[in-house]
Amino acid sequence: MGTLLDQIHSPADIKTLTIPQLEQLAQEIRERLILSLSKTGGHLGPNLGVVELTLAMHYVFDTPTDKFVFDVSHQAYIHKLLTGRRERFSTIRQPGGLNGFMLRGESEHDVYGAGHAGTALSAALGMAVARDMAGGKEHVLALAGDAAFTNGITFEALNNISEQTKRLIVVLNDNEWSIDRNVGAIARYLHKIVTNERVTHLHDSASRLLEKLGGKTAINVVRRAEEAAKGMLWPSVFFEEFGLTYYGPLDGHNIGLLIETFKFLKQQDKPVLLHAITQKGRGFQPALDNLKKFHGLGPYDPETGETLSAGQKTYSEIFADTMVKLANENDKVVAITAAMPNGTALDLFRPHHPKKYFDVGIAEEHAVIFAAGMATRGYKPFCAIYSTFLQRAFDPIVHDVCLQNLPVVFCMDRGSLSGDDGATHHGLFDISYLRSVPNIIHMVPANEDELADMLYTAMQHDGPSAVRYPRGTGPGVAVKVQPKALPIGKAEVVRDGDEIAILGLGALLPMAAEMADRLEAQGVSAAVVNPRFVKPLDREMLASYARRVSAFVTFEDHVLMGGFGSAVLEALNEMNFQVPVVRIGWPDHFIEHGKVDQLRERYGITVAAAMEKLAPYLKNSKVRLVAG
Amino acid sequence: MGTLLDQIHSPADIKTLTIPQLEQLAQEIRERLILSLSKTGGHLGPNLGVVELTLAMHYVFDTPTDKFVFDVSHQAYIHKLLTGRRERFSTIRQPGGLNGFMLRGESEHDVYGAGHAGTALSAALGMAVARDMAGGKEHVLALAGDAAFTNGITFEALNNISEQTKRLIVVLNDNEWSIDRNVGAIARYLHKIVTNERVTHLHDSASRLLEKLGGKTAINVVRRAEEAAKGMLWPSVFFEEFGLTYYGPLDGHNIGLLIETFKFLKQQDKPVLLHAITQKGRGFQPALDNLKKFHGLGPYDPETGETLSAGQKTYSEIFADTMVKLANENDKVVAITAAMPNGTALDLFRPHHPKKYFDVGIAEEHAVIFAAGMATRGYKPFCAIYSTFLQRAFDPIVHDVCLQNLPVVFCMDRGSLSGDDGATHHGLFDISYLRSVPNIIHMVPANEDELADMLYTAMQHDGPSAVRYPRGTGPGVAVKVQPKALPIGKAEVVRDGDEIAILGLGALLPMAAEMADRLEAQGVSAAVVNPRFVKPLDREMLASYARRVSAFVTFEDHVLMGGFGSAVLEALNEMNFQVPVVRIGWPDHFIEHGKVDQLRERYGITVAAAMEKLAPYLKNSKVRLVAG
Repeated sequence: MGTLLDQIHSPADIKTLTIPQLEQLAQEIRERLILSLSKTGGHLGPNLGVVELTLAMHYVFDTPTDKFVFDVSHQAYIHKLLTGRRERFSTIRQPGGLNGFMLRGESEHDVYGAGHAGTALSAALGMAVARDMAGGKEHVLALAGDAAFTNGITFEALNNISEQTKRLIVVLNDNEWSIDRNVGAIARYLHKIVTNERVTHLHDSASRLLEKLGGKTAINVVRRAEEAAKGMLWPSVFFEEFGLTYYGPLDGHNIGLLIETFKFLKQQDKPVLLHAITQKGRGFQPALDNLKKFHGLGPYDPETGETLSAGQKTYSEIFADTMVKLANENDKVVAITAAMPNGTALDLFRPHHPKKYFDVGIAEEHAVIFAAGMATRGYKPFCAIYSTFLQRAFDPIVHDVCLQNLPVVFCMDRGSLSGDDGATHHGLFDISYLRSVPNIIHMVPANEDELADMLYTAMQHDGPSAVRYPRGTGPGVAVKVQPKALPIGKAEVVRDGDEIAILGLGALLPMAAEMADRLEAQGVSAAVVNPRFVKPLDREMLASYARRVSAFVTFEDHVLMGGFGSAVLEALNEMNFQVPVVRIGWPDHFIEHGKVDQLRERYGITVAAAMEKLAPYLKNSKVRLVAG
Repeated sequence: MGTLLDQIHSPADIKTLTIPQLEQLAQEIRERLILSLSKTGGHLGPNLGVVELTLAMHYVFDTPTDKFVFDVSHQAYIHKLLTGRRERFSTIRQPGGLNGFMLRGESEHDVYGAGHAGTALSAALGMAVARDMAGGKEHVLALAGDAAFTNGITFEALNNISEQTKRLIVVLNDNEWSIDRNVGAIARYLHKIVTNERVTHLHDSASRLLEKLGGKTAINVVRRAEEAAKGMLWPSVFFEEFGLTYYGPLDGHNIGLLIETFKFLKQQDKPVLLHAITQKGRGFQPALDNLKKFHGLGPYDPETGETLSAGQKTYSEIFADTMVKLANENDKVVAITAAMPNGTALDLFRPHHPKKYFDVGIAEEHAVIFAAGMATRGYKPFCAIYSTFLQRAFDPIVHDVCLQNLPVVFCMDRGSLSGDDGATHHGLFDISYLRSVPNIIHMVPANEDELADMLYTAMQHDGPSAVRYPRGTGPGVAVKVQPKALPIGKAEVVRDGDEIAILGLGALLPMAAEMADRLEAQGVSAAVVNPRFVKPLDREMLASYARRVSAFVTFEDHVLMGGFGSAVLEALNEMNFQVPVVRIGWPDHFIEHGKVDQLRERYGITVAAAMEKLAPYLKNSKVRLVAG
């Protein structure tokens, strides 16, 4: 029934509850999350872990006056439930519904949006400094997972915090996982703190002490006792060298303790870090049994956690299968992921080649420079990073890989729409941001077998290369046992034609074919081309059609600005052809979350839209100018 | 006379020298640096600081078998002198001469190039892992300044090192400066170590002890004694939590001590960090008196250090002057630099508005997200970051600023060629990488007064904006006392014409005017346009000329691929005009260092090249197609 939850219309409504009532509310929230997300999908595991933390934060602080910045913000569902969006919660990640992340436009309680990791401390510091300059009194809290501490931006922020403000509360939500188990020295360090017997013991006594004494005095006592026992040495040294006073580790599910702690931290006149230990997936056994799966997922059975069994292999899985083949064939092949072994499917590669597999944490820049370092020594690193996250490594791509012309391969999963995740996760810019960088070749497969061939081509190419492929499944083309190298810079003419040349990049090749069918039905002869290479473009193919056709059509799952169609315009321009080009792709604004087909329809990434734009050129079909 | 130095043809030649001979060699190298750079300019201060370190590294290790990775690599001059490039050293940073940074193509001893900070540890780890996989024995050393520890990538690497290799030597070259005095908690931490009395005392005894005992035993003893005295606590805890064993602080100018230490570190089967204290500018009083100036500079008097006095104000100085005006007028204006107060000229702003000035270290990503955080609270942050370094912040620009449509201003100094610095510092990609990002406006001033107006326009604009301006001085146009807002998206027609429309972006506007003069002399009527806005483009202006002229010409100081001319092609395409466009800009490969005029000549960024490309369209001047 969720009777308590249904009475919460704003954070003010939880401030009168008793601890037992808050505990009941936590239970109701968990039930609501499990049931609601079983229908919509979403980031179940991370949210089950922060129920008490979020409740305690809203109990002690007052949003929107006080500012909560959540790192990545996929764990903001409880925050959404408490801040006036409970009734719309069933629409989360659905077309037209609530966004799956914090979104400034969605609520005044969402003061900072995110989707990529590692930004919370920097953004929160900006807000804290702004407050200090304006003479404000509000509190600023950054909630960041331990995985955010594998990312360099978090350290850049840590390096600045204590020099620039006296009041900022960092909450380290430590569950020892990013999407996969967290990696690196910091993870090891935090684990050491948490599992240290003395600390654990002290912590237990602390809780008991707190129950007896209540309030801030107790916390002070606890902290002093802990510090004394640890000789002021450890675990506080690390964070305190950054100028943040460390409090913890604290049980992140003990709501009374959390509330008392936040009340205490609220009064501090120095930057603080609260180390809260939480359990990802807490309260839902299927999630606890499979943390990776329940980090973020589609609909599932709310009793058993079962999801629809996967049928056809995804592009990611084809990528992983191919990587196994490549590493079998070439002992210089290595695979690198930035904390996404599951999403990129490299977890399927790892058991086959554990020593050729590297998870470097949420550290895309390091991943690429590390790859460049290996490449100088004869290795062939494949960096599997989502298109949108590779934006993080743009400078290393330019400065370390392409400028030095090193054979690093960028495997850009989620190239094009992310669908339900929305604007922070759409990979719609990679052609633009990579195309102007010298030395790199850029491939886009139209099907699964072509993906395998492109990876093989990349392996054989002595220079930087990128392969972009979409989320989910492709057309289901069978993959050859032995991939083959494609001729670099050569497009595939799927069928020839005389009047219109239609170029369908990657996943949009079927649109090109459908359009050609429609044109043929009108008696217009249309060629269908699978470009395969965004860079280098097949100029010979373009020139050949430029001499014959009255117009080109380009389809791309990418923004039009600076994209594939733009590259076609440039090439025709450089060859002095003046042939009309109808370009179909995404417009110049950020695209909301939604179902891919619906979004394509809404923004005119359709055959119908292309037909309409082409119409003027069909009327005077043979009019064109060939200059030069 | 430099008799010793002139006998060094390869690193092998220093291995037989005695300590006193090495000390003499160090002296000779300093003299050579001071004299040679007085003619060519260069990074004098940083190199004077690492003379002994570099000698000791080459004395103990064997390049190119052992791998040296230098962070930024502006401090590699001594390395160049020792590795077969002594005779060409007078050509450094000169056209056709040695590069001012490590360059893989220049020598087998330069195993990794750089120019941007923070990459050394990641690249070195890649090499170390490659060595481990291949079963190699070589040593890998990363030499990084303390400023590199303000950059997040360094921490991403630190987080990975101890998990991935047992043998890597990190040399922390601590001089407490980046280009300006270093900032942040890490700098404070290192300073605390260095100035700690006990450590200093122990360090002095260590040196004496070493002299008596010699060799590795001594170092072991020293280390143990130090650790005991410090209670194993400090300063090692910080780096040791990252899994690197800390040695130091050591006098980075005591060559005997450095050699013994490196011999000891060479035998360690664990990742180590050597903390060497050096003095930037050592041995040249003018440099010690003005560390900022002598970080990197043009020719100077080798006796007094005097440089030619600056005449006309640079674009950077005009920027700083304008920022003072803006901050006077609007109390929400703040200025942010990523460790470049001198280069961006914000050091001229700082005394006027010390509380509105933020130096965040070499942390471009944090800088931009910090700015975004402030912008959510009503502030108007101006991020002054060189075009090439802003590549680091591409994802924050997309994900934090533009997606949230926050009014952050990017002041992209060094947009276009860096000149002597070369490919790592040229800012030739910013139009391409920013143009496809929704919501941002992108301006390029043609003169100093227009820069001021554009900054004013950015201040008034309620959304993200970018202004790109070149290194050095402009045409010398006087700046109005009160800047004014420009109409967004409107170009300036400098002079009208009927047959050819010439668009000269920013610094290349004079080329457009010169070309128009030449055309007029041939009886061809040519319009000259100052586009001002790359985004939004002035479509009305383009359409108006597209209806009249037989061709457009675009001049841009940027790569052609995805650049300004490409934007013109797209706009004409979208408006269904088929007018030829002659695009002049940089080609699709990395551009070497050199004098700007010479490089423009070499790569056809000239009026002559434009005239030649335009010729075919002049012959059949009125032939064009207007469709739709």
